[in-house]
Amino acid sequence: MRYRMVLGKNIHKYRMKKGLSQEKLAEYCGLHRTYIGAVERGERNISIDNIEKIANALEVDVTQLFHNERGH
Amino acid sequence: MRYRMVLGKNIHKYRMKKGLSQEKLAEYCGLHRTYIGAVERGERNISIDNIEKIANALEVDVTQLFHNERGH
Repeated sequence: MRYRMVLGKNIHKYRMKKGLSQEKLAEYCGLHRTYIGAVERGERNISIDNIEKIANALEVDVTQLFHNERGH
Repeated sequence: MRYRMVLGKNIHKYRMKKGLSQEKLAEYCGLHRTYIGAVERGERNISIDNIEKIANALEVDVTQLFHNERGH
């Protein structure tokens, strides 16, 4: 499924922008570090509630996490 | 969680625009009618793969389903 990958790449991008480790981001979200890693690699079928937690921790809007730079 | 509600309202809106019943949309997505109803009411913690299936069936971009008309 394509959007898992878009989401993973964007989470990685915004995490780097904030200079956060996966561990630190995980701590801010109340999620596990290995889960964040798997989401960034598009391996997990993440739910809307967890997407929202990550967006809040990264201080971005949820829609920013779905933006596909390569277009449609 | 706020985005469940945004998503539910937008799915309902675009389903109405296409003149689809919950049953018909469910059929197009390979999901169950009662599940679509629950998602529209913000009752389910829907996953990214199912969000993508619904967006494809409604012929909208995933980001359109997260657009919050009331702003932030």
